[in-house]
Amino acid sequence: MPTNASQEKIHLDDIAPGDEFLSSEYLVDAGQIVDFARQFDPQPFHLDEAAAKNTFFRGLAASGWHTGAITMKLLVESLPFAQGVIGAGGEISWPRPTRPGDVLHVKSTVIDVAASRSKPNQGIVTVESLTLNQDGEVCQRLVAKLLAFRKPA
Amino acid sequence: MPTNASQEKIHLDDIAPGDEFLSSEYLVDAGQIVDFARQFDPQPFHLDEAAAKNTFFRGLAASGWHTGAITMKLLVESLPFAQGVIGAGGEISWPRPTRPGDVLHVKSTVIDVAASRSKPNQGIVTVESLTLNQDGEVCQRLVAKLLAFRKPA
Repeated sequence: MPTNASQEKIHLDDIAPGDEFLSSEYLVDAGQIVDFARQFDPQPFHLDEAAAKNTFFRGLAASGWHTGAITMKLLVESLPFAQGVIGAGGEISWPRPTRPGDVLHVKSTVIDVAASRSKPNQGIVTVESLTLNQDGEVCQRLVAKLLAFRKPA
Repeated sequence: MPTNASQEKIHLDDIAPGDEFLSSEYLVDAGQIVDFARQFDPQPFHLDEAAAKNTFFRGLAASGWHTGAITMKLLVESLPFAQGVIGAGGEISWPRPTRPGDVLHVKSTVIDVAASRSKPNQGIVTVESLTLNQDGEVCQRLVAKLLAFRKPA
């Protein structure tokens, strides 16, 4: 059942495979795409609509790292993990770029929960987070290993 | 041999496993860490040194997505792929966080080169990019699948 940050914070023992979390929506406009790209990914297809026309992307497209950063913003609001959303790493793919005017949201599903052998108070929760546009198309798939903690005794 | 963006652009047939590319350096300060976190990852350990002391990170730490974005900036300058640095996806991990005052650089090594079966003019180059701090410690490991293109006939 979708939950959100307005609910109580959850600990390792509260989390199970199949749990789902749905984020709010985030509108991405051309100005944001260009601002991010100027700072972190200054390539023609992320900087200028006219220049982008003759590239692989055939039009202005957000940097994949911008889609990733927006996804993190939506995850921080929608994954109510006690002690926060702390990622050790994961797998990421960008099946299609985020475009100007896209309204993104993130649907997260718990895939696996594993207690740590060496650290009894923590574990790793594997979460698939799909970043979807307003047409339900996947702009990013992230399978992240997140730290989760047991409730203090 | 390390190469950089001042050299000629390279195409699919120019790239081979073992090829290395070294980026320039990038100084990360507390202001940048907090600015990025306010936009994309607003959690106490990324926002405020005092609040961060009592968290998992025991002090202010950059968002992993900030380290990823800075890495992309350094890759755009250091990977001289014709048509740009275009990632389809990859694996990412953050063995340690980027801290205020860190000076990052990225060392990239080509792991695999595969021609596309369906698109004769392109292929996928697998590149490991280590984002290292001034002490040579790994803040991020990224193994990315990048698009590369054949030289036009």
